Amino acid sequence: MSIPSTHPLISSETASSPLIRALRGETASHIPVWFMRQAGRSLPEYLKVREGVGMLDSCLRPELTAEITLQPVRRHGVDAAIFFSDIVIPLRLAGVDVDIKPSVGPVLGSPVRTSADIERLESLSLSDESLAPIREAIALIVAELGGTPLIGFAGAPFTLAAYMVEGKPSRDHLGARGLMLSHPDLWERLMQWCARVTGQFLRAQVLAGASAAQLFDSWAGSLSLDAYKVHVAPASASVFEQIKDLEVPRIHFGTGTEHLLGAMRDTGATAMGVDYRTPLDQASALLGGNVPLQGNLDPAYLTAPWPVIEAHVRDVVARGRTAPGHVVNLGHGVPPTTDPTVLTRIVELVHSL
Amino acid sequence: MSIPSTHPLISSETASSPLIRALRGETASHIPVWFMRQAGRSLPEYLKVREGVGMLDSCLRPELTAEITLQPVRRHGVDAAIFFSDIVIPLRLAGVDVDIKPSVGPVLGSPVRTSADIERLESLSLSDESLAPIREAIALIVAELGGTPLIGFAGAPFTLAAYMVEGKPSRDHLGARGLMLSHPDLWERLMQWCARVTGQFLRAQVLAGASAAQLFDSWAGSLSLDAYKVHVAPASASVFEQIKDLEVPRIHFGTGTEHLLGAMRDTGATAMGVDYRTPLDQASALLGGNVPLQGNLDPAYLTAPWPVIEAHVRDVVARGRTAPGHVVNLGHGVPPTTDPTVLTRIVELVHSL
Repeated sequence: MSIPSTHPLISSETASSPLIRALRGETASHIPVWFMRQAGRSLPEYLKVREGVGMLDSCLRPELTAEITLQPVRRHGVDAAIFFSDIVIPLRLAGVDVDIKPSVGPVLGSPVRTSADIERLESLSLSDESLAPIREAIALIVAELGGTPLIGFAGAPFTLAAYMVEGKPSRDHLGARGLMLSHPDLWERLMQWCARVTGQFLRAQVLAGASAAQLFDSWAGSLSLDAYKVHVAPASASVFEQIKDLEVPRIHFGTGTEHLLGAMRDTGATAMGVDYRTPLDQASALLGGNVPLQGNLDPAYLTAPWPVIEAHVRDVVARGRTAPGHVVNLGHGVPPTTDPTVLTRIVELVHSL
Repeated sequence: MSIPSTHPLISSETASSPLIRALRGETASHIPVWFMRQAGRSLPEYLKVREGVGMLDSCLRPELTAEITLQPVRRHGVDAAIFFSDIVIPLRLAGVDVDIKPSVGPVLGSPVRTSADIERLESLSLSDESLAPIREAIALIVAELGGTPLIGFAGAPFTLAAYMVEGKPSRDHLGARGLMLSHPDLWERLMQWCARVTGQFLRAQVLAGASAAQLFDSWAGSLSLDAYKVHVAPASASVFEQIKDLEVPRIHFGTGTEHLLGAMRDTGATAMGVDYRTPLDQASALLGGNVPLQGNLDPAYLTAPWPVIEAHVRDVVARGRTAPGHVVNLGHGVPPTTDPTVLTRIVELVHSL
């Protein structure tokens, strides 16, 4: 049974697309497939349009953002576009001093660690006006996509907060986890702020035309289940709550999160992205067998000879059939060195199964 | 029941130490505690003796290595010394061009990726002579330690191979995992070579006086259970096989390895180190309740106010009581920024419980 969309921007054509049907656990005309980070450094046409343009700028110039988002759909024939953005875009839009340093990642002008830092942060917010470039880009994208759905994108509060506390990428997120455990009151205020801007960011995308939303909690796997439930899940739940009335599928994904799958679903996701480490039949069983899944080709296979890749794709698809719906994807982002023709071939294979 | 040691260098005093008794699942006079990376950058006395000395050199000058290994035992009163070394030391001793770049990590002169690379590697081996600085350092260490046991140290074949294929540290070990999946024949030869030198390295340490051995598979958590079992476990089993006749406790540890705990134990470990993410009672249940455990204070707590740390230590100790033996440790290495007085206080607390 299809859940009727009350959202005027989700056309009936999009609602009946293989992606949206699979994410709702309905039978689709073919198995849908897209790739996390499909828009990006693996595509020569991306490198060309990005020449001389900083990463965050490329997310905030509507025509360029739209072009980058659409490139992999045109090239690979994937079943969804994913909005080209960056985890720290809501911070930039709210006025936080943040930039992406090439070969480093997001770097903040001043990390957020003390009560005073959080107070300063709480004086910042996302205005409706600041979201204009997001709305404009999405309008351009959905106009070209037609019946192919666009998935909205946001980083989850914990991952956002991890960058904010460290001031830069880190391996163990010790600073963020330390603040969480040492000063749970400050941590909670930080998470509430992150949840608010993330929710606004995602809601703006759906209202502008995205037909699904994916929340990426890239670093959640660094947490124990208990720490996740107490200190992180409420903020992620608040993000999903802010888009719940829009009735689009809500996908939740993190890496190294086998031990958190159920808790992440319980924040209000309607479909779970699965990391490449957990076979989909096992993930489905862990989740009680009633959650549509997305994933989980291992990016390490992308450099293998085609017969090895093909066997892996067939295995993932077979395991995915144990879930009520399955969207084929990678169990992590496309590596920058990937040969894009391999991705196109995988799309063709999945569509033939 | 105590397993009698046939090894002449394990004195009866060491065999009856709390560490060795706990690792054998026997009742100890107090709960033993040591810290991964206890020798290192958190200690001012370490920074002083390391001045002007490269990392790998500090592992190969017997008097300096001994001094660094002993410093945390003197300062904290921990129940074990861990041999100060580096995962790539066996490579250096075998003649591989490798160095540690400050704030980068291990960097190889030329990565190992092709059949020709592996052939070149196979022409290198660890001679008995090359291990002389290891034996000399250990003789100095055990002479000062008396009844306090020394734990031997080695990086597991997968973690070693991950550095060798990438040529440097990486987040996802895509190069290594790609080689594993694309060219399993080459991968197996690489793993066999790594297993041989790692086994020799660890065996030399035990023969020189180490009373236990810990195999660190830092990056194993990046693997699925299936990939681990097929492509990694046989090499780790070969390492343990090379020291099995010496009858010292064999500890196996990796991070993010909850899904691999049983498979890692099955390689021939007699005790399992547990990452901070998995509560010890849960880890013990996963392992069938009959495996001594080591761990698993979360390093993120080390910056918390003392009452928060104390509650965490008490919780870890209480959960550890569900295992047949428990050695308190961190569930990851000591962060360089740790206040060493906090570690001393944790030792005092654990010993009082």
